[in-house]
Amino acid sequence: MKIITTIKEIRAALNQEKKSGKTIGFVPTMGYFHEGHLSLMRKAKENCDVVVTSIFVNPIQFGPSEDFETYPRNLKNDSKMAEEVGVDYLFLPSVEEMYSGECLAYVDVEKITKVLCGANRPGHFRGVATIVSKLFNIIQPDFVYFGEKDYQQLVAIKKMVDDLNFDIQVVGVPIVREKDGLAMSSRNKFLGLREREAALVLNKSLNLASEMVKNGEKDSIVIKKAMKRLIKKEPLVNLEYLSICDNIYLQELSKIEENVLIALAARVGKARLIDNVLIEGN
Amino acid sequence: MKIITTIKEIRAALNQEKKSGKTIGFVPTMGYFHEGHLSLMRKAKENCDVVVTSIFVNPIQFGPSEDFETYPRNLKNDSKMAEEVGVDYLFLPSVEEMYSGECLAYVDVEKITKVLCGANRPGHFRGVATIVSKLFNIIQPDFVYFGEKDYQQLVAIKKMVDDLNFDIQVVGVPIVREKDGLAMSSRNKFLGLREREAALVLNKSLNLASEMVKNGEKDSIVIKKAMKRLIKKEPLVNLEYLSICDNIYLQELSKIEENVLIALAARVGKARLIDNVLIEGN
Repeated sequence: MKIITTIKEIRAALNQEKKSGKTIGFVPTMGYFHEGHLSLMRKAKENCDVVVTSIFVNPIQFGPSEDFETYPRNLKNDSKMAEEVGVDYLFLPSVEEMYSGECLAYVDVEKITKVLCGANRPGHFRGVATIVSKLFNIIQPDFVYFGEKDYQQLVAIKKMVDDLNFDIQVVGVPIVREKDGLAMSSRNKFLGLREREAALVLNKSLNLASEMVKNGEKDSIVIKKAMKRLIKKEPLVNLEYLSICDNIYLQELSKIEENVLIALAARVGKARLIDNVLIEGN
Repeated sequence: MKIITTIKEIRAALNQEKKSGKTIGFVPTMGYFHEGHLSLMRKAKENCDVVVTSIFVNPIQFGPSEDFETYPRNLKNDSKMAEEVGVDYLFLPSVEEMYSGECLAYVDVEKITKVLCGANRPGHFRGVATIVSKLFNIIQPDFVYFGEKDYQQLVAIKKMVDDLNFDIQVVGVPIVREKDGLAMSSRNKFLGLREREAALVLNKSLNLASEMVKNGEKDSIVIKKAMKRLIKKEPLVNLEYLSICDNIYLQELSKIEENVLIALAARVGKARLIDNVLIEGN
């Protein structure tokens, strides 16, 4: 695995690979790898000749009161894990490499990014769409891989790729969970033991919702009420939002239809956690 | 010259060219060609193995009260002219081909686009940056060519390419003028005979400014006053703005420095005309 820190060098290396006809799979990340990240890299490895992973904690997608400074980092361990999975290039640019001078160009995805996490994190998805565009233009991959845990990010990037005609296939990869059901996240590191236990209620509430839908419940309000009742039993868990929405534009649905996304965010101690379930084909 | 109307076909054709190692030069236009457009194509022909020109009158860069419907079009003549200059591919997508479904992703360039034309045409440069991004992603050129007549567009695109890491060289090409000095523009077609005559004062006022700078005048207010006095002599010419600014961020300068742009817009009859002069190295 080659570790590269400059745009110029990664371009040169990948141009060589492309010239020999190889396909490029790309996994953009903020590092502090867990099985969720590795599942993206493994999927890329399955589909593509060359796998590139980037680690870049992108300052412009964090709000002023958010956890940019404390976001967990462990480059040494990350590079070991990436190498074991068979990543070919690990791209580790500095903030100065990615944002030199006064940056004025931004990419926005409207509508989709105004709801769910976007409502509570103004500027977040603009930061995401911009850094992802930059990385796409640097790496010029054939396939890119995003986790379904950040479902809103996945659909926003898919829409951006379609609307701006990036010549890239976006692949969504299912959520990877701990054995007890907690969705894997770099931010789980922030959880104390009791918080860790309490956080399980998030996945449990999603399972409850799936069960209710399976049993024929079509009323979003009824499902949300049941979920909230369950979550309230854990005083360490502060629900930020709970949405039952379509899976393309993420607009609220009062009645359960085909392909419904149930998504939530909650604060548990210092951690802001998100989780979701996609219920298909009702 | 091949005429292509779909994204899929132009991609396939250009992928073949790139595979054989050829460089691609791209000239995005709104058609109704004049010598200004042809100078861009000739420059591309000089530098690149394959020249692509697009004609697309982009609805999202026109305001609701602007001339999208009446913008001059003459595809037959345009394709004849492009062929004569040696263009290899003429890309003519429909509005439906470029904007299918509900488009939500946009590219913005801040600061640079808020002044000059941007102040009077809200949304214009967002429309330009977005369509140009789309075309860049479709054509994936090595070099792109923009006229210096739309100087603000040129610097905004340059900034966008830098900030978003497009792997593209942006080349600015000097203004082409009629023998009497009028900057060539597709919109000159809207001018009546008397208006055509009156419009010459725009270039004359820029020449006057250049002369004043050459003679040592450093005060922008003095230069603007002299220009406005001259322009006022033509009652058919309604000045929209007159700016003396730096040539990178287009911010107003009270004192003439190195690399000053003097730019103006005016309404003459039905036409909105722009012109500028770059005064370098004072």
